[in-house]
Amino acid sequence: MSGSLAIAGLGPGAESLITPEVSAALAAATVVLGYGPYVARIAPRPGLRLIPSDNREELERARHALELAAGGERVVVVSSGDPGVFAMAAAIFEAVEAAPEFADLDISVLPGITAMLAAAAALGAPLGHDFCAINLSDNLKPWDLIEKRLRLAAEADFAMAFYNPRSRARPEGFARVLEILREACGPERLISFARAVTTPDQHLLTVTLAEARPAMADMRTVVLLGNSATRRVGRWLLTPRSA
Amino acid sequence: MSGSLAIAGLGPGAESLITPEVSAALAAATVVLGYGPYVARIAPRPGLRLIPSDNREELERARHALELAAGGERVVVVSSGDPGVFAMAAAIFEAVEAAPEFADLDISVLPGITAMLAAAAALGAPLGHDFCAINLSDNLKPWDLIEKRLRLAAEADFAMAFYNPRSRARPEGFARVLEILREACGPERLISFARAVTTPDQHLLTVTLAEARPAMADMRTVVLLGNSATRRVGRWLLTPRSA
Repeated sequence: MSGSLAIAGLGPGAESLITPEVSAALAAATVVLGYGPYVARIAPRPGLRLIPSDNREELERARHALELAAGGERVVVVSSGDPGVFAMAAAIFEAVEAAPEFADLDISVLPGITAMLAAAAALGAPLGHDFCAINLSDNLKPWDLIEKRLRLAAEADFAMAFYNPRSRARPEGFARVLEILREACGPERLISFARAVTTPDQHLLTVTLAEARPAMADMRTVVLLGNSATRRVGRWLLTPRSA
Repeated sequence: MSGSLAIAGLGPGAESLITPEVSAALAAATVVLGYGPYVARIAPRPGLRLIPSDNREELERARHALELAAGGERVVVVSSGDPGVFAMAAAIFEAVEAAPEFADLDISVLPGITAMLAAAAALGAPLGHDFCAINLSDNLKPWDLIEKRLRLAAEADFAMAFYNPRSRARPEGFARVLEILREACGPERLISFARAVTTPDQHLLTVTLAEARPAMADMRTVVLLGNSATRRVGRWLLTPRSA
């Protein structure tokens, strides 16, 4: 009996943003694993085992998923957004690297709509030109590297998307991020806080860096920063193609 | 009669990657506009007008779409991938800025799976940590700005995605990009050429920068560059979460 492992992106929240490819994988699955709130988005049905776990347990979850697939299960590991953007795809391949006996399994990555693209769509076109995506969580990397990337990204005049702005482990970190950005980009630069995009709780707020406060972001917020040419067009944001 | 304008992303190619939200908008549309090859992906039906145009005519297309929506049509402007990533969303809001009488129209942006995320999924997890997306076309921006961003992105040790690597207007540009990257990232850095991802023509190639050649990219290719920690895991690419 040969199993399989799909690492699937559920998109930012709305059902209508789940790709048919992911829906088909979920319909064929025998086991679904993931962070509790993401697994809670999957409708229970006979023949499907749901295995939620904590979000600090990515590597253990990855290993468990590989073992189940090796045992013949049709396993789907779910991430919110896209599994390749600060989510489970990297964790799975780290686990494969540590246990090469799993390297020949039938593994696939099924892309999804990542939060920054859903937030950008809701706001207009704030990522309309060159941009970068930075994970502000320092669980797995040194804080100095985050600061260095922020300064270089500002110098390159990238639009920026920030994931995980408020980490439990370092609540003061995001205040420091805003300070660095104010220094590097000036007080007038536009910044958007997009909370729970595409869900009933969606809340969008665009302010200048001078007005931005750490409390405007929580753990469900993705933060977008414009580049030097980003401006308002009516109720929309525009980063022009020529910037 | 009040019309509407949706700027919709068709994803990278596969039908199974078109979101239900976009499918619903297309099913309700009275007019679809876009670059010829993208409009060709829409099935004709009674009551639907298809208006293909050349890819150098984004602003005229945007203006035309706004006029049709103002006239009461249910308009969908299609982009491949995601409309907010080097595609039509910015062009539409540039057109709104130039003609503010359209600012109160019912406009929405419907996100899609952008090429870099589909390519990353096919390759494993090459964008598993902080990354940037750079449009290499110099149609709308000076070449010096592209070079500056490449050097700063390399210094920041971002993984990188490059759109439009081979422009007709400047075929030698991509050779220069590879030179700059070799100089900034060293000859051993991994680079992937993902052509026509998720279509029957899909072709994936991963080499080192020393081995990379401009001809490995064409106009249907998105190019992904690893960061300094990116490595092969069996047939996959991994950019670890701690990098």
